[in-house]
Amino acid sequence: MHLVVRPLSTVKSSLFYSTSSHVPARAMVYAQYGKPSEVLSRMPLYRIHKHTLPDVKPQDVHIRFLAAPINPADCNQVEGVYPIKPPFNTSLGSDEPVAVGGNEGVAEVIALGDQVKGFSVGDKVVMAQAGRGTWRSHAALPASEVQLLPGFNSQVSLVHAATLTAHPHINVDNVEHHIGDYVIQNGANSAVGQFVIQIAHAWGLKTINVVRDRPNLDELKEYLTSLGATHILTEEELSKRETRSKLKGWLDGRKLRLALNCVGGKNATELGRYLDHEGKHVTYGAMSKQPMAVPAAPLIFKDVSYHGFWVSRWTDTHSRQEREAMFGDLINLIKEGKLREPVWEKVSWKLNASEQENETAFKEAVNKGITGFGKGKQIVFFED
Amino acid sequence: MHLVVRPLSTVKSSLFYSTSSHVPARAMVYAQYGKPSEVLSRMPLYRIHKHTLPDVKPQDVHIRFLAAPINPADCNQVEGVYPIKPPFNTSLGSDEPVAVGGNEGVAEVIALGDQVKGFSVGDKVVMAQAGRGTWRSHAALPASEVQLLPGFNSQVSLVHAATLTAHPHINVDNVEHHIGDYVIQNGANSAVGQFVIQIAHAWGLKTINVVRDRPNLDELKEYLTSLGATHILTEEELSKRETRSKLKGWLDGRKLRLALNCVGGKNATELGRYLDHEGKHVTYGAMSKQPMAVPAAPLIFKDVSYHGFWVSRWTDTHSRQEREAMFGDLINLIKEGKLREPVWEKVSWKLNASEQENETAFKEAVNKGITGFGKGKQIVFFED
Repeated sequence: MHLVVRPLSTVKSSLFYSTSSHVPARAMVYAQYGKPSEVLSRMPLYRIHKHTLPDVKPQDVHIRFLAAPINPADCNQVEGVYPIKPPFNTSLGSDEPVAVGGNEGVAEVIALGDQVKGFSVGDKVVMAQAGRGTWRSHAALPASEVQLLPGFNSQVSLVHAATLTAHPHINVDNVEHHIGDYVIQNGANSAVGQFVIQIAHAWGLKTINVVRDRPNLDELKEYLTSLGATHILTEEELSKRETRSKLKGWLDGRKLRLALNCVGGKNATELGRYLDHEGKHVTYGAMSKQPMAVPAAPLIFKDVSYHGFWVSRWTDTHSRQEREAMFGDLINLIKEGKLREPVWEKVSWKLNASEQENETAFKEAVNKGITGFGKGKQIVFFED
Repeated sequence: MHLVVRPLSTVKSSLFYSTSSHVPARAMVYAQYGKPSEVLSRMPLYRIHKHTLPDVKPQDVHIRFLAAPINPADCNQVEGVYPIKPPFNTSLGSDEPVAVGGNEGVAEVIALGDQVKGFSVGDKVVMAQAGRGTWRSHAALPASEVQLLPGFNSQVSLVHAATLTAHPHINVDNVEHHIGDYVIQNGANSAVGQFVIQIAHAWGLKTINVVRDRPNLDELKEYLTSLGATHILTEEELSKRETRSKLKGWLDGRKLRLALNCVGGKNATELGRYLDHEGKHVTYGAMSKQPMAVPAAPLIFKDVSYHGFWVSRWTDTHSRQEREAMFGDLINLIKEGKLREPVWEKVSWKLNASEQENETAFKEAVNKGITGFGKGKQIVFFED
């Protein structure tokens, strides 16, 4: 209904072009950095901004968001402690300079400038880079800032599509694997962790998965096993002496050359202990906020190395084609049923509801995202 | 005098071949691992073994050692805590299985088997790999186990030649440098540290050198500056807040993408703090015996990575040609006067003196090497 599509006389690489001017749009914006809890309690800092889309510029696309998650990194960004700091500006017509929250999400192309190639109206797209703002009903932006999801169809849910960008092939880029090789990871029950289990399983790799002890441990183990996890250990078990020989038995001569760490501290150090020669230890998060201790001997004598993985750098250092190929691979896995949706909880953003109502729902969702009391990843659905 | 050289009728790739059978030889051997202090006090564990060289086998060379250093790693090897553990055997004709001490040293070819190519009698060689034993007057071994020093002549001292193998191009293999770029290192006054200063200086790189505070600091600074050090800081200065802005001023926009660490602990962590995007932190020693704390943010957001450097691995992963090219480069720098000898102290191993006398001299030298009370690297000269 916000969509004006018309056939074009001079068809270029896209089938249609269209204009979608003056579409009413809403965005969740903030005008200052601050702790989300504070920002949220002081509503002027974090509020819904109403505006209308401008005329379509020749190289722009207009998109309509369908679903966008609330990730911890999004909240860090609002805090101002994330390295990507979207500039505050008045491009959406606000009185004071603002930025739009959110980094991930799936949208549909609703209009194209007449110089845009490679996209059609109706295409499902994600943001090509982080920091562009996804907590909004619509966006008008250069076509270079969005990325096609190749092969997207009804077999691919909006939740899948909305959460794909945070998970490039974290293990492909780092180590050459052979079928039967092992990967070890902590925070194995996180969204990325679950993703790693499934990708590894689909590729014939085995996984050793470390999780925090918890009351419903058996339930969690059962769930992770159903995703394809080979072995599951608690953090406490990992640091025990007898684990060393247990692990040797599991490995049975196969290589363990990738450790994925999103926890930090002692647990990250323990992961490194089990790496084979030339193994890589890759940090992509630091939930414990503790630095890890790295002993010298494995660095020197086993050629073990420590790296970081940041999806935004992955995006920046890979071409549009490489990124499309990666999304294509993931979408194929989804279609083959090898990649489940993360556990998620729906947040409705009813665009026609009152601002008060929307803000309350959003505030609650962000809070759940931060405190971890939600039943999974909070995913905002944009609804009329 | 131990040398029998005669012209050969069928000349192959080498000008001469020769036999040097039954040359009297001595080796400093040990029959058990143990703390050097204990091993040294229990002389049967660490003693001079007399033997004679066998007939020259077709693929063997016989070499006469000229000079060999006593390195900390050699002592760790005797302790049994070094990853390269020479096998104990009776190949030298000892009653019990023994290993020969030492890993580095320069020797002269005195005889060649008739299938050996690429060497001539009189060539100066080093051991192609660690763990083969260099604390000995002579050795008979496959030609594949020695490595030519290309371009060696009288401009190159025996001390230089005897200490080259420990110092491959530590900084070449790790980071692409541009003239004016910076390297930061701790333990800058170590033999490797001094070497790095000079190589960097010869290549147009600048160095920030961290040393421990000491009474004669000004003297040390003067000496390191004379080698080509750009800046010198104490460990204490490095960890001060104001150093950050000082360093920024020094760098003045130039890249700092290599940190070399042989200390570990807090100081190693501090080095990492100053690395630019994509910087590499390379550990080649752990004098403090403390692991270093690695924070997650630079790994994730700056693509900083942590590696180890081990000269034995460098040797194993580079071809004979690559190694020769590297030694050739270093020998050229020596001839150009750009690479000084390390500070060293002579240990005479008079082959014709009494065993008692030799063992006492050796024991003293090893002790100096371990405690650091010597006036520099202990270098054994093999004399008649």
